[in-house]
Amino acid sequence: MNDRVYNFSAGPSMLADEVIVKLRDDMLSYEGTGMSVMEMSHRSKVYLAIFEDCKARLKRLLGIGEDYEVLFMHGGATGQFSAVPLNLMKTGKADYIITGNFSKKAAEEAAKFGNVSIAYDSSENNHSRIPSSDELKLSADADYVHLCSNNTIFGTEWKTFPDTGSIPLVADMSSDILSRPVNVSDFGLIYAGAQKNMGIAGMAVVIIRKDLAVKDSSRMPVLYNYAVEIKNDSMYNTPSSYSIYVLDEVLKWIESIGGLEEMEKRNRAKAALLYDYLDSQNYYLPHAQKDSRSLMNVTFTTPDKDTDSEFAARAAERGLVNLKGHRLVGGIRASIYNAMPIEGVRKLVDFMDEFAGEKR
Amino acid sequence: MNDRVYNFSAGPSMLADEVIVKLRDDMLSYEGTGMSVMEMSHRSKVYLAIFEDCKARLKRLLGIGEDYEVLFMHGGATGQFSAVPLNLMKTGKADYIITGNFSKKAAEEAAKFGNVSIAYDSSENNHSRIPSSDELKLSADADYVHLCSNNTIFGTEWKTFPDTGSIPLVADMSSDILSRPVNVSDFGLIYAGAQKNMGIAGMAVVIIRKDLAVKDSSRMPVLYNYAVEIKNDSMYNTPSSYSIYVLDEVLKWIESIGGLEEMEKRNRAKAALLYDYLDSQNYYLPHAQKDSRSLMNVTFTTPDKDTDSEFAARAAERGLVNLKGHRLVGGIRASIYNAMPIEGVRKLVDFMDEFAGEKR
Repeated sequence: MNDRVYNFSAGPSMLADEVIVKLRDDMLSYEGTGMSVMEMSHRSKVYLAIFEDCKARLKRLLGIGEDYEVLFMHGGATGQFSAVPLNLMKTGKADYIITGNFSKKAAEEAAKFGNVSIAYDSSENNHSRIPSSDELKLSADADYVHLCSNNTIFGTEWKTFPDTGSIPLVADMSSDILSRPVNVSDFGLIYAGAQKNMGIAGMAVVIIRKDLAVKDSSRMPVLYNYAVEIKNDSMYNTPSSYSIYVLDEVLKWIESIGGLEEMEKRNRAKAALLYDYLDSQNYYLPHAQKDSRSLMNVTFTTPDKDTDSEFAARAAERGLVNLKGHRLVGGIRASIYNAMPIEGVRKLVDFMDEFAGEKR
Repeated sequence: MNDRVYNFSAGPSMLADEVIVKLRDDMLSYEGTGMSVMEMSHRSKVYLAIFEDCKARLKRLLGIGEDYEVLFMHGGATGQFSAVPLNLMKTGKADYIITGNFSKKAAEEAAKFGNVSIAYDSSENNHSRIPSSDELKLSADADYVHLCSNNTIFGTEWKTFPDTGSIPLVADMSSDILSRPVNVSDFGLIYAGAQKNMGIAGMAVVIIRKDLAVKDSSRMPVLYNYAVEIKNDSMYNTPSSYSIYVLDEVLKWIESIGGLEEMEKRNRAKAALLYDYLDSQNYYLPHAQKDSRSLMNVTFTTPDKDTDSEFAARAAERGLVNLKGHRLVGGIRASIYNAMPIEGVRKLVDFMDEFAGEKR
């Protein structure tokens, strides 16, 4: 394991060493089957056991009730930008809360299929904050309200979710699912791309309250139809079978360390290290406002762009890689998802302090 | 490698030992990067080199011209059942040739989005044959003609493709792509799920003549829009990055053995072993008619269903696994894709002869 780096990539992103070693060890022959999981028929007994284990573990970890279904769908979160309005716009209108790049994209995609009302938009402050409940302009008759729980690019995260009453709340949790416990019953639908806290890019996990799945599929691509996916237990076509296995290994790892309560504790400790340092100095400028700070993506800038680049390059020489910020916000972004150990964050803070000391 | 089995699964299916060993060896640290390919940002230099290598290799192997684009899309072939009509039904009608389960599903999906005319349907003979050109009822004004080049479940395969003149021919090549050279310029669009000859389930490779990509995206889910995928080089959202890397390793392996000409030679030799044996005896009954036989999926039955099950179970004890036929046709199916070595087929024929000898 000696040459593994601390990978601060926003996604796809690092996996826990325990998981990646298991993937390696299983590659030639999974549990004596003589084949890799990616070579297995998705209808085989061995594979179905992995599939069921993954679903059961996810339900257990997130406390998902019987009135919800877990689906493994193709296309990452972006596929859900289309599937959500196609399935959930029963009367043709929805409220979207824009707090970053992906919630904006979700709203634009939904507008193809119905009437989208923007309940809030933080563009003006370059998405540096999450609104309070009373800032939201919610419609009385929306089919659903959509938000993105963590804004990967800008480094903001919802601490408490708005109460939308009987109107289903839909959340894109791509970049903070499994980072903390969440009350699933507060949501009509939760979706997340797998490539941050759940493994491999290309798949989305969807947690849907069953009554929200429509049956009419007249003009909807079959793979976007929640009712079809529910009926076929995510196997209308061959699912992303290897990605589901990787997710199962990730879930085993989370359970082994103590579940989502422990995961949140660790994530809070990691984030606190970084934010406490940022608040203790005046060389780096944090992007997100204090009460909106993400536990997953910590964004800040050095005094200028060239120094941002120098920072990222010199950090990489120390094995602290992929720290460059997204082009939309610039600067530095440290993505410290579940799999990032606290040692990586400590090394980053040490480097930040040393770098600032040189520059000051 | 000792405990690797001969895996006759129809898909997901076996990978060459060379490929699977490389995947294992790269898992903890790909070429000194300190991370697995699945942990890499899809925008990173190292990953983009893999991505470009994969595209270039595919173009080279299949002789894909400059007027075509290679896309890596989400959702396997089934996603393309929707994407093809959504993009290519410019006037709203298309001809579908039904020669098996998946071409039927493709036609049903297309009928959601326009007028589908069935140019041929082999349901009557339980899809045991491929039609000749003069059996096809092609429309003069179809937007495209769709066929499935190899019918995984029934074990039939097109030997020569119909000439559709100026009307684009669209082929689902999920189960025989890369098994033989193909003249890409005969097609408007070729698509294939990756889980048979190209690696991991969940992704589709699309080879599209550029002029067929529409620009209007008014009501189309963004991930199904070919023009958007072309513009963004398959990265409108995070692609199935690990699957693309696996495909690249598969393509390297095919090039290393001598490309598609050699691949076809090997596939013909493997299929001949099985078909010659089937034609030399009268215990097993082949399903596909002689002139329509697939090089990839060899289907036959024993005298009754119980014996089919016994055959599959006893073969598995010898490390010849996943030989049970699909529920729609029953019997036995030996999928002998690119990665199946001829030794596996020899062992299967030996077992078949021994089994038949016992039973006769």
